[in-house]
Parts: sequence; structure tokens; C-alpha cells
Amino acid sequence: MLSKNQIKSLRALQRKKERLKTGFYVVEGKKIVQEIIDYTDDWVELYATTFWLEQNPEYSKLENVFEITDKDLAQVSSFKTPNEVMLLLKQKAEVDFFEVHSTDIVLALDGIKDPGNMGTIIRLADWFGVGHILCTTDTVDQYNPKVVQSAMGSISRVNIHYGNLVHMLTQLESHKIYACDLNGASIYDTSLKEKAILIMGSESHGISKEVRRMVDSTVTIPSVSNTGIDSLNVASAAAISLSLLRSK
Amino acid sequence: MLSKNQIKSLRALQRKKERLKTGFYVVEGKKIVQEIIDYTDDWVELYATTFWLEQNPEYSKLENVFEITDKDLAQVSSFKTPNEVMLLLKQKAEVDFFEVHSTDIVLALDGIKDPGNMGTIIRLADWFGVGHILCTTDTVDQYNPKVVQSAMGSISRVNIHYGNLVHMLTQLESHKIYACDLNGASIYDTSLKEKAILIMGSESHGISKEVRRMVDSTVTIPSVSNTGIDSLNVASAAAISLSLLRSK
Repeated sequence: MLSKNQIKSLRALQRKKERLKTGFYVVEGKKIVQEIIDYTDDWVELYATTFWLEQNPEYSKLENVFEITDKDLAQVSSFKTPNEVMLLLKQKAEVDFFEVHSTDIVLALDGIKDPGNMGTIIRLADWFGVGHILCTTDTVDQYNPKVVQSAMGSISRVNIHYGNLVHMLTQLESHKIYACDLNGASIYDTSLKEKAILIMGSESHGISKEVRRMVDSTVTIPSVSNTGIDSLNVASAAAISLSLLRSK
Repeated sequence: MLSKNQIKSLRALQRKKERLKTGFYVVEGKKIVQEIIDYTDDWVELYATTFWLEQNPEYSKLENVFEITDKDLAQVSSFKTPNEVMLLLKQKAEVDFFEVHSTDIVLALDGIKDPGNMGTIIRLADWFGVGHILCTTDTVDQYNPKVVQSAMGSISRVNIHYGNLVHMLTQLESHKIYACDLNGASIYDTSLKEKAILIMGSESHGISKEVRRMVDSTVTIPSVSNTGIDSLNVASAAAISLSLLRSK
């Protein structure tokens, strides 16, 4: 059984401020928890229902594993329908920005707000071997429970640098900077450089004026529709752009 | 003000059974409602808060526009945070399956469960001029409020055929059938045919055995990662595959 204090601290981790203060975050749900505990030892505590512990007896006797009632789980969960198990993790160590210099493809996010999009983009970066994502400070927090949910295990494998994006771009002189939005040259006809930074703008405002000034080339995924659809989901656009950058 | 019966009927449309019975569905939220009312007259009734009506006075005097209190909106909404305005729409007329024969690229979904993935895929189909999606009956309903939310206006522009997928595929003899999963040939090295059906499998089980038997060629989006990530989000995979089918 969990104490009131344990419940309070776990629930508090839904807030960014508390996550920053403590350096912890939580992930919820059977699939993602399984993925993490199968592949890493990076977790601190595990909270599971009696049912889950019966199905996974190898965990039931560990010191850092706690049984949680459905009622308590509902209290600490950020989801409408909590899912048997929750993991407390230490946020990954921040990687020195200098490492970005030596990587070929870098992703930059300018104000992405939707946690599902952010999580999907982190997962895509992991799939396409993009080890670093640069983000403006108004981009949604990587440890937001809904970001973690859709990023799955990739959250612990991709390095995310929050800060002044213009300043970060200025430092990466040997990379060519591409912006992906609706008014550029067709990305299919663009010969993409080996060392590239790809900037994706926010869902509602696109790429900001200050960041746009840093761009070498703007590329667009052309629509072949005649229905009047006017924009592509940003995570879909990132998927297509990263695929093209990697397959050229 | 809405009557108790109006509230009851609106709320009931969160259920697939009720949507099937009545032939109606709802969409919620400023952005998507704006997109629909700007481009079509396909809507039946509009429910908006006083605040929204003050911002959009051109609608406030129409006969089929109703003012709704925040409390009532919270009752009929399927979202945790309801968003000022809701639209009641008639489901689009079913298009004869025969029309699929004459289209070049067709998408087929085998048991997609996540409404966000489904909506994103419908939006992608719209963007890439794919007018028809074939779905197994266990694929999530296109009029599910969360599907509609992420499909946005595309929901009224893409034709979705639910039914026995094997039976539908059998009828489309002149199309080459591709399955996208993790164990095929690299999609970048595959020369994709002009008339193609692309099958995407469910998030947890992939493509079913019966459907797999119909497949001419299995293609894979290869990962270039060394981190051990083992799958790509199905909507991301659809984005990359459709982009390749259209740009070849």
C-alpha cells in the first residue's frame, strides 16, 4: 500500500515544474513499462496492481516494486483509464551541446505543442538514427506524461536540447539548415545535404520569424489532392522528411 | 438553452451504435469546426458558447445555431477540456465500392485501433489524393470523436469502406497488393506499381493471417538506428509509404 505522501509525490510529477525540481518522471501503461524494464535498468520504482504482479511474478519480490490499488492508481495517473502499472524514472543526464556538431542529421522543433506529435517525432528521430533534437523553450516538455506515452522507450534514447533555438543554430555552422513548411520548393526535387538540420514549426503558427532568418532552404511536401486540404500533420511531415533525408 | 433531450441525444453520439442508428456524428473544437463551416454547408446544427457567438456574429442569428452553456457543453463533449463549439453533421453518403476499381492508390487498414492514428491516416490519404480506404470491421469507427478530431475536415472528403477486407481485396484484381510491416524488402529499393493497394496492420498484432495471404509483396521502412527501437508508429509508416508511392 502506498502512503499519502507517496501518492502526492507521484501525482505532482504530472506538472513540469515538479519534474524539473525533482529530476524524476513517470511512465504509465503495460506496453511502455514492459519495453523499458525489458531493455534497461534505468528505472527507480515500479507501482503495479495485484493483477499485474501475479502476471509478472519475477518483479513481485524486488525491493523497489510497490503494489498499488486501482483507486490509488487512478489518483496518480494522468490518464482517464489508468493501465495496471506505472514506473518512476530518473530523467536522463543532459548531454553536452557540443556533441551535436559531430552528428549528420539534426531535428529542430519550433514550438511544437501537441504531446502526441512531440512523442511521435521523438520516436521517429530514434528510428532514423537522429540522436539530437533542438527545441525552443515553448516546445512541450519531453517528460510530459503524454509525450512519454507516445515516444515510448525512445524517450531515454534521444537527446533533447531546450533553449534559444536561434543561438543553437548559429553554433552549428557546418550544417545546412532546412525549414519544412507549406511555401517552399518540393522536397522531392531538392538535393538534401549530408549534414542537415531540419526545422519543423508549431501546429498553429509554423516557424517563427527569428528562426526563419537562419534558414538556408525551405522545403515543402507537395499535396496531390484536389480537395482543398491545407496542411499536413507535423509528425507526418517529419516522418516523410526524415525518410527522404535518410534514403537519399 | 438546450433541452434535456437535446443534451441526451448529443451525448449519445459518442457511442458508435447510436451513430450508426441515427446517421449523425459530432465534431468539437474551434479549429476543426471553423474548417468545416468555412468550406462546406454539410452541417446540420451548431452549438456554441456565448463567447464564440460574440466572436462570430455572422452565425448567431441562423436558425440551426444554438447557444450552449459551458456546463452543458462539458456534458455532451467527449473531451476532458471542451472547446467552445460543437457541430452536428450528417454522415457522408456511402460511395459504391465499384468506384475503388478506377482509383490508382488505395489504402487498406487491418484492425487499426488508436483513434489518433486513424485520424492522422485519413488526413494523409486526403493529402496524397487517396480517395478510398478499405477497413476491416474491427478498425476504429471513422466517426469516433477522437478520429474526427485528428482527421479534421478530411473526414468528409475520404471514402471509407468497412467490411470483409479479404473479400474487398479479391475484387480489386488489377491492383498490386503491398503489405507494410517489419519483415519485408526495403521500400526504398522496391519499384512500386502505379495501381497499388497498401495494407497497414494493427498497432499490436500487425497484419492478420487471412489478409497476409492476399499480399503480392511485403515492404519495410528500414531503421537506421542502433538503439534497439523495434517499431515505427503506424501513422508515421503510412506517411512515409504514401509519400514514396506518390513521388516515384
